[in-house]
Amino acid sequence: MHFHIMTLFPEMVQNGLHTSVIGRAEEKGYISVHAVNIRDYTLDKHNKVDDYTYGGGAGMLMQAQPVYDCWKALQKGIEERKTQGNTMPHQTKVIYVTPQGEVFHQKKAVELSKEEDLIFLCGHYEGVDERVLEEIVTDCISIGDYVLTGGELAAMVMIDAIARLVPGVLNNGESAATESHSNGLLEYPQYSRPEIWHDKRVPEVLLSGHHANIEKWRQQQAIERTKQRRPELYQAYLEAQNS
Amino acid sequence: MHFHIMTLFPEMVQNGLHTSVIGRAEEKGYISVHAVNIRDYTLDKHNKVDDYTYGGGAGMLMQAQPVYDCWKALQKGIEERKTQGNTMPHQTKVIYVTPQGEVFHQKKAVELSKEEDLIFLCGHYEGVDERVLEEIVTDCISIGDYVLTGGELAAMVMIDAIARLVPGVLNNGESAATESHSNGLLEYPQYSRPEIWHDKRVPEVLLSGHHANIEKWRQQQAIERTKQRRPELYQAYLEAQNS
Repeated sequence: MHFHIMTLFPEMVQNGLHTSVIGRAEEKGYISVHAVNIRDYTLDKHNKVDDYTYGGGAGMLMQAQPVYDCWKALQKGIEERKTQGNTMPHQTKVIYVTPQGEVFHQKKAVELSKEEDLIFLCGHYEGVDERVLEEIVTDCISIGDYVLTGGELAAMVMIDAIARLVPGVLNNGESAATESHSNGLLEYPQYSRPEIWHDKRVPEVLLSGHHANIEKWRQQQAIERTKQRRPELYQAYLEAQNS
Repeated sequence: MHFHIMTLFPEMVQNGLHTSVIGRAEEKGYISVHAVNIRDYTLDKHNKVDDYTYGGGAGMLMQAQPVYDCWKALQKGIEERKTQGNTMPHQTKVIYVTPQGEVFHQKKAVELSKEEDLIFLCGHYEGVDERVLEEIVTDCISIGDYVLTGGELAAMVMIDAIARLVPGVLNNGESAATESHSNGLLEYPQYSRPEIWHDKRVPEVLLSGHHANIEKWRQQQAIERTKQRRPELYQAYLEAQNS
């Protein structure tokens, strides 16, 4: 799977993602992460990519031209690769990372993990000229109801959530299935060695070796925790159980 | 404002945040970002920080001891600084970044931006031993209903959202106030030069210079967009208007 990121801060994306699990997956060839500098595509002689907002207002706006030309170049590269591989080229999804989009969630991550290529457009300044968004963007996605200084971190978050679902990226096939949100519940509490730490003992049942009881305890804990911390998730879980 | 991050990947956090707006704010001394390697605090002779989960299950768990000792060292440093500055030391908030927490949103960012210090604990592997969480964590926060390979990106997202609200961090005081989510609505579309791009013309009203009309148009657009893309936000907006 290939991730392409259109950004004004390619180093930020490359440095931030090339560590840990994602970096290892890249080295092994399961995914590729490729950040492109939008500024490289400006036709402005001063290398400018932003300008004032029509109608006034604070801050600068990213202009249509460099964004569009950057996207064209990426799209061309993808099509060429696909033609060589005899895959039918089709319009690659372009995700504009913006607080104005639909809110990202685990199901969306699963859906997007089936794409062969994904292009992310990271806004900066006050945003991006609406006209180029209309022309190239297929999905507007927000990672949550809060405002960031730019789209880079949000794109990195989505890439991390999507990439870990690509087969081979996680070492352990089980990991992706048993955790929070994959079954609609928050995860149960977990304990590791030593058995007693700061006078706190690991719950007896976990030491019992009785798998059915352990499962039951964990399920109860997960339900209890979800009910307490995220009542709306618990409601949705109940409805799913009853349907 | 001082951000302290407890992590197994300090370079990821440092590299990812030291660019762009946050990096500039650090240079100017408005904030500090300090990532500490939890591994530096393990007492294990092989430098190990994780072990199997009691009761079985995929993956490894972060153990209590290194996490606790790392936190103690951070807390001590903060108290010493405060004592020198004659500020009353109080328990610094410790945010555990986890999909099992309450969901982060703009109001929480505003609330946290008033703290002098914040400690973030980034989980990795399958999670962290519950006992140390009970002992040190004051807030469990999730950035959204999706799963990441680790807590680092989520911590970076929160730090970015919080730091930009610290006075001086954004260049333009207006910027933090006029954007998406600060008034309960998504932001209106914006346009920059040129007036015509790909046969698309900037809406006439924005060129009119008539401020009241521009405001009115923008408000309408913001309402329309919110209604269309985020009906639940629109409902909340209507209720707030009527109360």
